[in-house]
Amino acid sequence: MDNAPVSGDTKNTNLKAATVKTEVLSLNDTPFSLKSGDVLPGIEIAYQTWGVLNEDGSNAILLSHALSGSHHASGYNPSLPEAGELWKEELHAGWWDEFMGPGKALDTDRFFIVCANYLGGCYGTTGPRSVNPVTGQAYGSKFPQISVADQVKMQAQLLDALGIDVLRAAIGPSVGGLVTIAFAALNPGRVKTVIPIASGLKTTVLNRLILFEQILAIENDPYFNGGDYYDGPHPDYGLALARMISHKTFVHLDAIEQRARKEVRQDKEALAWYKVQDTFQSYMLHQGKKFVKRFDANTYLRIIDMWSRFDACKEVGVDSAEELFKKCAEHKQEFLVFSIDSDFCFYPEEQADIVAGLEAAGVEAMHITVHSDKGHDSFLLEPALYTPHINYALSD
Amino acid sequence: MDNAPVSGDTKNTNLKAATVKTEVLSLNDTPFSLKSGDVLPGIEIAYQTWGVLNEDGSNAILLSHALSGSHHASGYNPSLPEAGELWKEELHAGWWDEFMGPGKALDTDRFFIVCANYLGGCYGTTGPRSVNPVTGQAYGSKFPQISVADQVKMQAQLLDALGIDVLRAAIGPSVGGLVTIAFAALNPGRVKTVIPIASGLKTTVLNRLILFEQILAIENDPYFNGGDYYDGPHPDYGLALARMISHKTFVHLDAIEQRARKEVRQDKEALAWYKVQDTFQSYMLHQGKKFVKRFDANTYLRIIDMWSRFDACKEVGVDSAEELFKKCAEHKQEFLVFSIDSDFCFYPEEQADIVAGLEAAGVEAMHITVHSDKGHDSFLLEPALYTPHINYALSD
Repeated sequence: MDNAPVSGDTKNTNLKAATVKTEVLSLNDTPFSLKSGDVLPGIEIAYQTWGVLNEDGSNAILLSHALSGSHHASGYNPSLPEAGELWKEELHAGWWDEFMGPGKALDTDRFFIVCANYLGGCYGTTGPRSVNPVTGQAYGSKFPQISVADQVKMQAQLLDALGIDVLRAAIGPSVGGLVTIAFAALNPGRVKTVIPIASGLKTTVLNRLILFEQILAIENDPYFNGGDYYDGPHPDYGLALARMISHKTFVHLDAIEQRARKEVRQDKEALAWYKVQDTFQSYMLHQGKKFVKRFDANTYLRIIDMWSRFDACKEVGVDSAEELFKKCAEHKQEFLVFSIDSDFCFYPEEQADIVAGLEAAGVEAMHITVHSDKGHDSFLLEPALYTPHINYALSD
Repeated sequence: MDNAPVSGDTKNTNLKAATVKTEVLSLNDTPFSLKSGDVLPGIEIAYQTWGVLNEDGSNAILLSHALSGSHHASGYNPSLPEAGELWKEELHAGWWDEFMGPGKALDTDRFFIVCANYLGGCYGTTGPRSVNPVTGQAYGSKFPQISVADQVKMQAQLLDALGIDVLRAAIGPSVGGLVTIAFAALNPGRVKTVIPIASGLKTTVLNRLILFEQILAIENDPYFNGGDYYDGPHPDYGLALARMISHKTFVHLDAIEQRARKEVRQDKEALAWYKVQDTFQSYMLHQGKKFVKRFDANTYLRIIDMWSRFDACKEVGVDSAEELFKKCAEHKQEFLVFSIDSDFCFYPEEQADIVAGLEAAGVEAMHITVHSDKGHDSFLLEPALYTPHINYALSD
């Protein structure tokens, strides 16, 4: 049932037919100032759109992706840019296919949806793998620190270029929820409905510890070389280990047990003394190695650093959640906040904090907890749990 | 209050006066067969004893240490063997000083207490750093896999050598609890009272994942070299990362916040791109690096592998917990099982499983949950929570 289409008319949607392509907004000649104080000489923004923007530009939705996602949220993307092997994976179906399309949670018959790859990313937006125009080499270790406020600034520039003034909605799961909340607070007049899913206001100590472990796993890889590894072997096992550390917080442990295949695969390349014991270990190692094929370690470091430092109040420059959401109230934004009861990446208490802040500021907020046995990943897997409320929030 | 002596007469105990020394039982000429099928040509067992064995040998207690502990549980150990730098740390007070001494939980005026460093250890018992008599080189990568049943076999040989037939009690916290339970099941006629603290019957999936991450952290260190690193730099950052990954499961997160010092220390050796952000990260890195000074990565791998594979039924060769404890019931063993309510290394559910198995087999069992804000580490820090019940269980 989890993956069943939500409404009957989408049942036979052929995703391959829904061809989309990566668009690139080039702002190469405009220096981009970052919250850190660093300045990028220019940026390119890789993005996709779905649906048609109406004449008064009132039907646009901004979607923000999760940690390891991309702008390719839905459809079939036949483009294979020069950026290399990483892109091939992107030919696969988008990460939110079940939530986007005619009649789905984000109805492409009604809305014009935009999703951009994050700054620092590895799917087309300027990131550590991009060539630094000043040196003619990949940025690598020289790529600066990125904050959530920088993502919001980039998204706003993209909306400007697309001629979108006020969004019908901003929506994002997980790390995308952090960006969504910051967008709403930093651009209070530019969005009506705000939908963070399984997200938070400030990164918890537990997550900061888990993210720090992942940083060390990558930095201690024999091939990391401080981040300048593009000319040689990549820090694959460090990145795989990082992915494994995070994966257990995304997926319910019972699900790992179910997903783990029967056979135990040895990994002679990775493991010297140790013999893989069971299907859990084999499954986790497989997850880690699969991820390495589609992601860049430097991008991963930038995005988890951004996540680790996230504190919505600091991004916006205020002292309390009430102050954070004050302008959201003045602009009559409405929030729909989703919690997942089995989430142990972003715990339900964190969404309760969001809602408490919204209520203190006088923002209209609806808080929905979905009950799932899938943990944090529910937001990818169970459209039926989210679609009715998203449809309702976007119904007028 | 946590560290206050339990009874008044121990208040002024000068630990430095309680001099103990490492004893070594040499069984170098007796091949030691392991559960894995491998055979060590001979072993040495490093151990300490406290108190005096009475004439009929009826007052002996076997103590089993935790993952990173040693035989040096209490007192002041002035010995500084040739084994090297690792030992210097052992001059410090023992890991269970607050639980051992006149009038304490393990009363040295009444009992003769024995604690041995584990096989595969780095504190004197034969382990990966020991010289393989066949090659004249340190075992390193060639040191075999060790199981809990092997530790029990080694402990039984030590008791034989000391002339101890039946123990008054076997006690151990954490991984030491696993060894304690296995000892009781494998030697049902050799122990009267069995006290596992914050322990379990079978390693959980969550712990197996967390232990696997630690294994990969060490194996992917640039200096690991498959385990043969004794002639060069050691895999220090891999071991430090492993310690950090485990540390967060031992200590309550609030305690990490309290313990973290004010200053943020950079670690230029370890970290290239990344800048340490906060006192949590600084504290965790410090914990990891401190640990590296006193522990050997190969030993760590062997012991966490042993822990990861632990299933009391498999160690003993039976199919159910009821069967496991059947002979314990026949020999009228009594169990005292401790849970810590805030433990998220060995969850209270795990101790409930132990007790359910004991009750099914008809073993007399008392189950005590201590309420603590210190998490798993409570067993090191809060003697008052455990001492009355331990005294009671050992009172006859």
